[in-house]
Amino acid sequence: MHLKAIEWKANKVRMIDQTKLPEKIEFIETDDYKVVEEAIKNLRIRGAPAIGIAGAFGVVLGLNKFQGNDKNELNTYIKKEVIQSLRSTRPTAKNLFWALSKMEETINNYLDLPVEEIKKKVFEEALRILSEDEEISRKIGQNGAEILKDPSTILTHCNTGFLVSGGIGTALAIVYTAIEQGKKIKVFADETRPLLQGSRLTVWELMNAGVDVTLICDNMAATVMKQGIIDYAVVGADRIARNGDTANKIGTYNVAILCEKHHIPFFVAAPYSTFDFDMAGGEEIKIEERAPDEIICGFGKNTAPHNTKVYNPAFDVTPNELISGFITEVGVFRPPFGKWEKLKKY
Amino acid sequence: MHLKAIEWKANKVRMIDQTKLPEKIEFIETDDYKVVEEAIKNLRIRGAPAIGIAGAFGVVLGLNKFQGNDKNELNTYIKKEVIQSLRSTRPTAKNLFWALSKMEETINNYLDLPVEEIKKKVFEEALRILSEDEEISRKIGQNGAEILKDPSTILTHCNTGFLVSGGIGTALAIVYTAIEQGKKIKVFADETRPLLQGSRLTVWELMNAGVDVTLICDNMAATVMKQGIIDYAVVGADRIARNGDTANKIGTYNVAILCEKHHIPFFVAAPYSTFDFDMAGGEEIKIEERAPDEIICGFGKNTAPHNTKVYNPAFDVTPNELISGFITEVGVFRPPFGKWEKLKKY
Repeated sequence: MHLKAIEWKANKVRMIDQTKLPEKIEFIETDDYKVVEEAIKNLRIRGAPAIGIAGAFGVVLGLNKFQGNDKNELNTYIKKEVIQSLRSTRPTAKNLFWALSKMEETINNYLDLPVEEIKKKVFEEALRILSEDEEISRKIGQNGAEILKDPSTILTHCNTGFLVSGGIGTALAIVYTAIEQGKKIKVFADETRPLLQGSRLTVWELMNAGVDVTLICDNMAATVMKQGIIDYAVVGADRIARNGDTANKIGTYNVAILCEKHHIPFFVAAPYSTFDFDMAGGEEIKIEERAPDEIICGFGKNTAPHNTKVYNPAFDVTPNELISGFITEVGVFRPPFGKWEKLKKY
Repeated sequence: MHLKAIEWKANKVRMIDQTKLPEKIEFIETDDYKVVEEAIKNLRIRGAPAIGIAGAFGVVLGLNKFQGNDKNELNTYIKKEVIQSLRSTRPTAKNLFWALSKMEETINNYLDLPVEEIKKKVFEEALRILSEDEEISRKIGQNGAEILKDPSTILTHCNTGFLVSGGIGTALAIVYTAIEQGKKIKVFADETRPLLQGSRLTVWELMNAGVDVTLICDNMAATVMKQGIIDYAVVGADRIARNGDTANKIGTYNVAILCEKHHIPFFVAAPYSTFDFDMAGGEEIKIEERAPDEIICGFGKNTAPHNTKVYNPAFDVTPNELISGFITEVGVFRPPFGKWEKLKKY
């Protein structure tokens, strides 16, 4: 039913070139890991889980090109050339490092087998990373869909759908699943300045999936809420501290405050792996600042004086007390937060 | 000290061409009322008071071109040609209609005088409209500046400075005046989607006046407030109902809620004439919707699918209970609101 941000098809990786959205849908189909490398580097594929999957399949493609039977040669080539160069694409992409380590581990475990067998094991591991990610999406979708009344309208921020994962995403997975279950769900999408992931990607993917979506500027959310149109806000997360404080795309904290004011439940949808139990609270999260040009020269046009002083934090921290619940693949956590282990066996 | 959005200079009207900002400062200098007409129509000059002043001077220019001594001819020409065409430029600009009526009234009052005398009276009336507007700005600035502690940092939204008036504006008049008084005032400017009046105009005019200004996206305001940086929010107003509910540029209501959450005083700065005592409360204010292209094609490039459903309200209504005070030329109104007459004699 949905397009796939990334998939394996006829011995090739197939990815949507997200830099072309929303103007055109163009696919990259390749059996060359260098093309995957370039795609990650230049944001043709983006979103932490999707990048991890791309990295894993990059290793598969690199290995497929290997000729001969010399294990030492194979080992050096795959680690020093293929994995090394894939790793250098996005320095802060945690999922990418995690996926590449998994691939490296697999090679180490099966280095005694014939080359063709190693190739097979590595390919299986990449498929496992992809299907695990699909499964996480699916379960987040199911756990969240149970909560939504029918009909209802959801406000979302940034992009959290199939474009960021091997499956159907996080917050938008809930929308997709509820609609599949027959519920009537509408979405209001914040455009999400400065990079407009809401208008460029969320609106595009929801329209593509036939979902009723309305685009607003971030500063219109309060007015829409006041009109009684919004039943829930559901957003994603970059990192969740032990106390439930949540780092996510800039503007999320604004949405949470507006929800509190209008008595609208505010949910965070994220894989359980997003919890960082080493971090006690949101005050430990460093706020990354990005380039002024994203604001003063977004989309190729100067909209402020050239030497304007700009503050451009990439994300913000929503304190736990504004959060109605965390929707994960292992279940839904409700306040009081902190007993994160109780659902882990689920 | 400040540039002037509009002024009278050597028998000509001189206006900043605001469509060229922030890329270049270009002035329009003209003795042709048709040029003024085009400038109003195409937003080269904007902001209710500034448009009113432009209309008044347009009448002066039109009258200056009149040759001969036939009063009937003069009367027909000025009313049916000049005023008529100036009136057709911006159908909803209240200040424009008000200013053109004042000019028409002046002509009616002095139609017995010789033509040269009529020209003089009409010119004097235009100058009076300009200087009254300057005086209102000056007094709003003084009344607001008294409130600000030294040093302090102000968050503002949209554009409310000298570009919208014959003087130094409303909310920004307070900043300019406090700085003139020697206070150390910094400003954070919301970019103000969709039309970016904050980044295009507010940042430009504050930098031009040497004020320390930092540009943020609208959705970053809560994060800045949480950091304890903002001491006050000060915004303008399009219309204020009898109970104090205030219509202003979309996003203002968001700012007011964020201020309440962070215990930051939220002030509205506006001429006393902005009060609409015929309107009991904000629920009577109709919210105007504008074209989708402002959001989906706002940077000269499509940033959402072409047929995206968009909600684009031009302004929102901030309920009176979120407002710490109204700063007007007749004084500052504090809660409980409603006794609007008590300062009128001021």
